[in-house]
Amino acid sequence: MAGNTTGNNFRVTTFGESHGPAIGAVIDGVPAGLELSEADLQADLDRRRPGQSNLTTRRAEADRAEILSGIFEGKTTGAPVAVLIRNCDQHSKDYSNLAGLFRPGHADFAWQSKFGMRDYRGGGRSSGRETASRVTAGAIAKKILRALGIEIRAYAIEVAGVAAATRDFAEIEKNPVRCADPAAAKEMEAAILAAAAEGDSVGGIVECEISGVPAGWGEPVFDKLDAELAKAMMGIGAVKGVEFGSGFAAARMRGSENNPPGHSGGISGGISNGENIVFRVAVKPTPSISKPQRTVDKDGNPAVCEIKGRHDPCIVPRIVPVIEAMAAIVLADFR
Amino acid sequence: MAGNTTGNNFRVTTFGESHGPAIGAVIDGVPAGLELSEADLQADLDRRRPGQSNLTTRRAEADRAEILSGIFEGKTTGAPVAVLIRNCDQHSKDYSNLAGLFRPGHADFAWQSKFGMRDYRGGGRSSGRETASRVTAGAIAKKILRALGIEIRAYAIEVAGVAAATRDFAEIEKNPVRCADPAAAKEMEAAILAAAAEGDSVGGIVECEISGVPAGWGEPVFDKLDAELAKAMMGIGAVKGVEFGSGFAAARMRGSENNPPGHSGGISGGISNGENIVFRVAVKPTPSISKPQRTVDKDGNPAVCEIKGRHDPCIVPRIVPVIEAMAAIVLADFR
Amino acid sequence: MAGNTTGNNFRVTTFGESHGPAIGAVIDGVPAGLELSEADLQADLDRRRPGQSNLTTRRAEADRAEILSGIFEGKTTGAPVAVLIRNCDQHSKDYSNLAGLFRPGHADFAWQSKFGMRDYRGGGRSSGRETASRVTAGAIAKKILRALGIEIRAYAIEVAGVAAATRDFAEIEKNPVRCADPAAAKEMEAAILAAAAEGDSVGGIVECEISGVPAGWGEPVFDKLDAELAKAMMGIGAVKGVEFGSGFAAARMRGSENNPPGHSGGISGGISNGENIVFRVAVKPTPSISKPQRTVDKDGNPAVCEIKGRHDPCIVPRIVPVIEAMAAIVLADFR
Amino acid sequence: MAGNTTGNNFRVTTFGESHGPAIGAVIDGVPAGLELSEADLQADLDRRRPGQSNLTTRRAEADRAEILSGIFEGKTTGAPVAVLIRNCDQHSKDYSNLAGLFRPGHADFAWQSKFGMRDYRGGGRSSGRETASRVTAGAIAKKILRALGIEIRAYAIEVAGVAAATRDFAEIEKNPVRCADPAAAKEMEAAILAAAAEGDSVGGIVECEISGVPAGWGEPVFDKLDAELAKAMMGIGAVKGVEFGSGFAAARMRGSENNPPGHSGGISGGISNGENIVFRVAVKPTPSISKPQRTVDKDGNPAVCEIKGRHDPCIVPRIVPVIEAMAAIVLADFR
Repeated sequence: MAGNTTGNNFRVTTFGESHGPAIGAVIDGVPAGLELSEADLQADLDRRRPGQSNLTTRRAEADRAEILSGIFEGKTTGAPVAVLIRNCDQHSKDYSNLAGLFRPGHADFAWQSKFGMRDYRGGGRSSGRETASRVTAGAIAKKILRALGIEIRAYAIEVAGVAAATRDFAEIEKNPVRCADPAAAKEMEAAILAAAAEGDSVGGIVECEISGVPAGWGEPVFDKLDAELAKAMMGIGAVKGVEFGSGFAAARMRGSENNPPGHSGGISGGISNGENIVFRVAVKPTPSISKPQRTVDKDGNPAVCEIKGRHDPCIVPRIVPVIEAMAAIVLADFR
Repeated sequence: MAGNTTGNNFRVTTFGESHGPAIGAVIDGVPAGLELSEADLQADLDRRRPGQSNLTTRRAEADRAEILSGIFEGKTTGAPVAVLIRNCDQHSKDYSNLAGLFRPGHADFAWQSKFGMRDYRGGGRSSGRETASRVTAGAIAKKILRALGIEIRAYAIEVAGVAAATRDFAEIEKNPVRCADPAAAKEMEAAILAAAAEGDSVGGIVECEISGVPAGWGEPVFDKLDAELAKAMMGIGAVKGVEFGSGFAAARMRGSENNPPGHSGGISGGISNGENIVFRVAVKPTPSISKPQRTVDKDGNPAVCEIKGRHDPCIVPRIVPVIEAMAAIVLADFR
Repeated sequence: MAGNTTGNNFRVTTFGESHGPAIGAVIDGVPAGLELSEADLQADLDRRRPGQSNLTTRRAEADRAEILSGIFEGKTTGAPVAVLIRNCDQHSKDYSNLAGLFRPGHADFAWQSKFGMRDYRGGGRSSGRETASRVTAGAIAKKILRALGIEIRAYAIEVAGVAAATRDFAEIEKNPVRCADPAAAKEMEAAILAAAAEGDSVGGIVECEISGVPAGWGEPVFDKLDAELAKAMMGIGAVKGVEFGSGFAAARMRGSENNPPGHSGGISGGISNGENIVFRVAVKPTPSISKPQRTVDKDGNPAVCEIKGRHDPCIVPRIVPVIEAMAAIVLADFR
Repeated sequence: MAGNTTGNNFRVTTFGESHGPAIGAVIDGVPAGLELSEADLQADLDRRRPGQSNLTTRRAEADRAEILSGIFEGKTTGAPVAVLIRNCDQHSKDYSNLAGLFRPGHADFAWQSKFGMRDYRGGGRSSGRETASRVTAGAIAKKILRALGIEIRAYAIEVAGVAAATRDFAEIEKNPVRCADPAAAKEMEAAILAAAAEGDSVGGIVECEISGVPAGWGEPVFDKLDAELAKAMMGIGAVKGVEFGSGFAAARMRGSENNPPGHSGGISGGISNGENIVFRVAVKPTPSISKPQRTVDKDGNPAVCEIKGRHDPCIVPRIVPVIEAMAAIVLADFR
């Protein structure tokens, strides 16, 4: 099974490695007649890119999306939209010290086991860089959904154990953490920088709220709307859990408490029920840290792994647009 | 999109409503030459059936699976295996009082919105009864996996707020809660019966541990092994969340804590890494409770809903074999 | 890959062997609210069944379809419709003389190579009997399409080298050959009986004309409407070729002759163009003949194969409803 | 349904219009460890390109394939291989006279009906130019298959009514028609040039012979090997029919004639039987001809269509590598 395509009616295929010539996406099922230009893709690419704040790596990755197909006279034609992003800094680093090591917390060993080889330059295909492709597809999906009155917003609600107390959506893009509570955002920022100073990293929880989905989307049984959203979220490398509505807290409630509106996360029996869709995603601390770590080498011998360069001490702010993109891709497939 | 089929290489299609003539499954992709008989399906059906203990509804549902195809001289042929389970008590209850009401916490309203009609007899297609079909498919998947040295075990680790402290797999089937900690199981049982006495229900958390999966299963990017497992779990009606390895707790760890083996849940970058696969699933309290509840009727007017009969006050024990079945179906598809 | 499911929006899964307990189909994606009963399936089952005229085998196969799911109060619910047909005569013949032989012109050897074993009783899963399942799914598809003004008609235009000269659709069901030219039908009938008298069989060509498909159905590039119809036709065991519009004759025309309307078969660039869709299908002579034939046995030694019992000397009349069914299944998927 | 992707295990997605910035393909499911470079794609691209002989249009389309991903140190990694081909002459012609007309024999009207708009520059997405993308994917598939001992050869057996009498595979690439009979090739060439001189075009029949496929490939029932090959062939714009083995001629044979080896086309019951696979494809005369033709405009009024420039008077020689590519893509999916 080839695993780089998702969706049936709105179908996204991505390609590219962190250190190859380019990454990109082919987006099939875009309805004809939608106004679309490269500028539509750039906003979310900029929200995902490194170097946007003091909280992220400073790699100068100037992601520019080129649309190769599917547009005629400024509008989509119904043909697939292909997007190309050249990798600018593909030769900038020396990864040869990692060629024989499996980085802890990374997919290196699993990938080697599966394919019998791996591209050791920054993770290759399993690098978070791949998500830039998804963000371009998500930007198109969002534009389709917005025309239907559907709005998708993701934001940090917890970072390094600091929880947000309020949710003011107007605040999200005003702080580098992408938190809807500006006071908590300050604390989160401090916690991230403290971890960074120790050569370590922190994780967090991102919530996503989707308004405007009419009742009746989703398929009963296997292809439930929440099942597809869960798959899409778990398909993001750093995500280790997902919950809808009351989620894990529902496990501690009684039926009489959990039955009333507001607990379902907007999805009942796999089908949207007209309430806002709400889910939360657990983001692990970035495995790429500067601290020396114990690992094994190719031959199974103990080794010490040092990952050079500067890394994101917390991927939460940059994963927010990826979560929105994947949610949009799922919804556009069900529309 | 038709949503009653899952998988590509091991493909399961289910059919049937709680109060129609029958339910069943077609299982395609079963390798030829596997010894298989109806007895292989019965064990898990019996673990799922109502009336197996004092904790479940007493509906006398004698689920007998008939294999209709795919077997010749006691072995599978490579042709699809169709399984039929007749509904014995399809006419035993009167649901007419629910025809005009949407039961709180159920899929009734969402289903009505999607299809413009619904089978109001006990949930119809969205009833938990559908999972009996999945259990038969899962029993076949388990048998295929067992031959490869793969063992799947699910068990309650929390019910009604009572958490298990130990995990002794030999205990699981010895208590009606299916908990691996016999002392906690006693407390859980008491909590379930207390809720039942008040006409209410409770939820819980089920853990699943899978041993024997070799490193290298799963597809990078969209069709990650954990992404497919998450979809499969969220495709079970009562499930509201899923987490792998350290899960939501990873969001509060530092990278240096979370990187070492034992935190990943056996899957790295979407590919099995040779460790045991471990995930947990949040099960909501059953929405069918005897207590009168506020709801709306078809015309949007406030109404009171009373669900007659006796219901499971906690679905956790009966959902355990369903979770195992869905995990097995996913793994059999990747094998 | 499991190969017993077709379609995405209208998805059909079939199961069952010629000599197992039952055959059947699960039809997913049937819109809610369609009036449907077992009588709707019976008409086409009767057109496909053996024993309906002097031209077919006299096996008394009383195919009765039971609908197991997806219907509530006489209408479809949007849930999958499962159809069950019990095999009545599964123990009536002795096939043991064929257990060690590969029948010439049959799938026996290929099947054995693929699966390492085979159900030698009358072809098992590769028997033409499987098409009864498709006919029930096709009957539902036809009913959906008829509501949209779409009519599908298949009929013999050539049998045993005898070609039809006229096309009067009112004549099709009046003769046992299902030919739209009653004079040719008489000759065809005589040719079939002559072959039968020699223990041999004949083939023919079936044409299918579909009216009422609006312009715009089908997908460009890979999933062209004619590509999907061709796949569906070649998926019928006895079919060895398919052509659209002018078909193979177009290869001998000039562009200026072939460009005007009437040559395309109603499909341009893979998309319906509003003209009637017309295609033709080559049906090979039934491989099951009474004449002794040379073959090889399991060990590769030369052997003589004698297939007992009476067989259809020409499958054309009974394949007509199968062709209609498969065309309907494809169109219902694109609707 | 998005229709620009084909295959499951070997999955090809193409994009791009004849007059957009670029065309290309994403090929997923390429096994890791295959030596691959751009040179591997160029040979078949050169066989498909215009201007390679006196029989094709002289557009100077210098198709150069750039591989964007999936290769590390000269070998495939298991990640998707993306291929990019820039369109060099995208602005070279003026198509504005066709903006309001539907070209006879083309997909213009059907496309407009489906999407409500169309890219009128040379057919846009429905242009034969899209097949260059398929050829690059096919080149990779062929390389995979060749390592398994599988060889795919296509060649003209009839053009403009002139049939080949002999089949000497060594001759195919020595004449501009790609015919395995050099004497017939001369006559075919003359017939093509005669039609071109009159501003007209001719069609033909291409045969494809595949050696080395082991017995056992293909899926019974819907996803038969011949069914998938038929779909792949009919998915090529100019193809109007396909037949396997004895094909339409089998319709005139008796069972006793057609049963022996040599008639099945190498596929029995949808599964390869170890003989060479043989099928034939009917190619219609190119609809783009210089002769003025009657058509209708956007408003349904009669109009005269004149297609400027020089066109291929016979697409047969250039469609040969496309047929090989599509056959290879199907087989690589079943391997």
